[in-house]
Amino acid sequence: MTTEFELIDRYFSRPTSDATLGVGDDAALVEPSPGHELVVTADTIVSGVHFLPDTEPRSLGNKALAVNLSDLAAMGARPRWALLAVTVPKADDAWLSAFAEGFYDLARRHNVALIGGDTTRGPLAITVTALGEVASGTALRRDGARVGDELWISGQVGSAALALRHIRGEVRLKGKGLEACMARLERPIPRVELGQALVDVASSAIDVSDGLVADAGHICTCSGVGIEISYADVPSISEVTHLKGDQVIREALLAGGDDYELLFTVPAGESLQMDSISARLGLALTRVGRVVAGKEVHVLDESGEVIAVDIGGYEHFA
Amino acid sequence: MTTEFELIDRYFSRPTSDATLGVGDDAALVEPSPGHELVVTADTIVSGVHFLPDTEPRSLGNKALAVNLSDLAAMGARPRWALLAVTVPKADDAWLSAFAEGFYDLARRHNVALIGGDTTRGPLAITVTALGEVASGTALRRDGARVGDELWISGQVGSAALALRHIRGEVRLKGKGLEACMARLERPIPRVELGQALVDVASSAIDVSDGLVADAGHICTCSGVGIEISYADVPSISEVTHLKGDQVIREALLAGGDDYELLFTVPAGESLQMDSISARLGLALTRVGRVVAGKEVHVLDESGEVIAVDIGGYEHFA
Repeated sequence: MTTEFELIDRYFSRPTSDATLGVGDDAALVEPSPGHELVVTADTIVSGVHFLPDTEPRSLGNKALAVNLSDLAAMGARPRWALLAVTVPKADDAWLSAFAEGFYDLARRHNVALIGGDTTRGPLAITVTALGEVASGTALRRDGARVGDELWISGQVGSAALALRHIRGEVRLKGKGLEACMARLERPIPRVELGQALVDVASSAIDVSDGLVADAGHICTCSGVGIEISYADVPSISEVTHLKGDQVIREALLAGGDDYELLFTVPAGESLQMDSISARLGLALTRVGRVVAGKEVHVLDESGEVIAVDIGGYEHFA
Repeated sequence: MTTEFELIDRYFSRPTSDATLGVGDDAALVEPSPGHELVVTADTIVSGVHFLPDTEPRSLGNKALAVNLSDLAAMGARPRWALLAVTVPKADDAWLSAFAEGFYDLARRHNVALIGGDTTRGPLAITVTALGEVASGTALRRDGARVGDELWISGQVGSAALALRHIRGEVRLKGKGLEACMARLERPIPRVELGQALVDVASSAIDVSDGLVADAGHICTCSGVGIEISYADVPSISEVTHLKGDQVIREALLAGGDDYELLFTVPAGESLQMDSISARLGLALTRVGRVVAGKEVHVLDESGEVIAVDIGGYEHFA
């Protein structure tokens, strides 16, 4: 009979060098760096809502941490610690072992120490709390965008949404395009290094989890500005570039969530700086629009006409 | 149609004075106190596993935070911040409003600022992450108990377990006894002030969530000691004191979880100090045993004979 304590011991108690006291006491003890603010976030993913019930446990371990590291990235923070609260229907050794592998793989890559959490029985859901640090006063926020700033985005958008539509049979991807989209859905890459590189450059930032237009809208609301996005400039994987006029593709690019790219604003005239960061990180950075007076996001086509977008994005309860 | 963002805004975005940036950005920003360690814990409670599905939402809001503040208390920490990840089957205004009331009531009492979290749709479960602080090097841990120390406990144990047995029809409580037990099950009181008062006195501490004997066992394992508990000294509510010989009552006192009292060890000869803390906090503190050489917990009756205990306590998956 496997008890909760044995499960925690077996899968989630790897030694950490970055905590005074890790898993195994009532709480963990860590020492924040002097002169830094602590950046804290917690996100839950629920089976059937945020991931398909038959998702590989290894992907899930990766994703549960990735979505939280993405939030830290959007603040410009250096990730340091995480807590993992995993609720599973039963104590399945193979499942937990693969899940832990996926979690630790990503944690190791970003020097994140797993310092605590909880293992409970119930319908499959995972909540991760991630803690990071930024030098005091330097965090990237959603409220710093100013009229005249440029809007930039990392990587490509729409890929996770296209993968989901492929699984549902609504679009048909193949070859490298299919691979790229599935990888994005199953193993999103938090843009941790980019976030830290943007601390001294960007005026605001957010990660694209709800969809490009919806997340640009959050910057508008928090900063009290409007945003114009040039649809022709919105970066997609090359396999669908020639299909950008298609309605389904357009929706995926503009309203599809779960890409976990960083969307950020920078003062005009920083293109060289952007090129240099892009080259250093090996990550595409694309200017997709600009900050204007107003309150809303408008997406414009090549002739400057407004494209209507169903801003749905990912809405629980909606 | 209520969206996730509206829910968060409506119920979980009260202004905080204790964060640089609270709910509403990608992550929260807080400033830890210099010279302190950060104490972090995360606990999940799942419907049907940790609470009865028809539990009042107000009680639940209280309990979700209480079990986490209890972990901070067991470390001697001062609670400061919390993140709330709540998964609910549907956006029910009355339910969420009452839940938020229960949560904020307890948060206010301990100056805890709700700085972030997540609202998701799914089977009812709540994960709270609580963050607190202790002066560096002073945290109460499970591994400091030494042979010769005395074992003490706050309040009374067994009450939550008795309430559960009453609900199941296994025992029959009434009047004030029933009230006291139900209150303990539904609105546990984290011993936050006690934890902080013990920082300079106790050699180890744990909160009683798994049951008196099981939690004493965790101190044994972490400290490399044995513990003898004198059953006659184990404090119960007065209504059942005369029934301590009964098997069901004994099991509730020794193996019942969810009381959230503090169990701690202190060097011998600190009784006056304990009396003074007890008087100041208006909270009973009782010496229930002692730390001995060995590895295990033994419960002794008045003639010094070992009482066999089914150490079950609260075991997920078991």
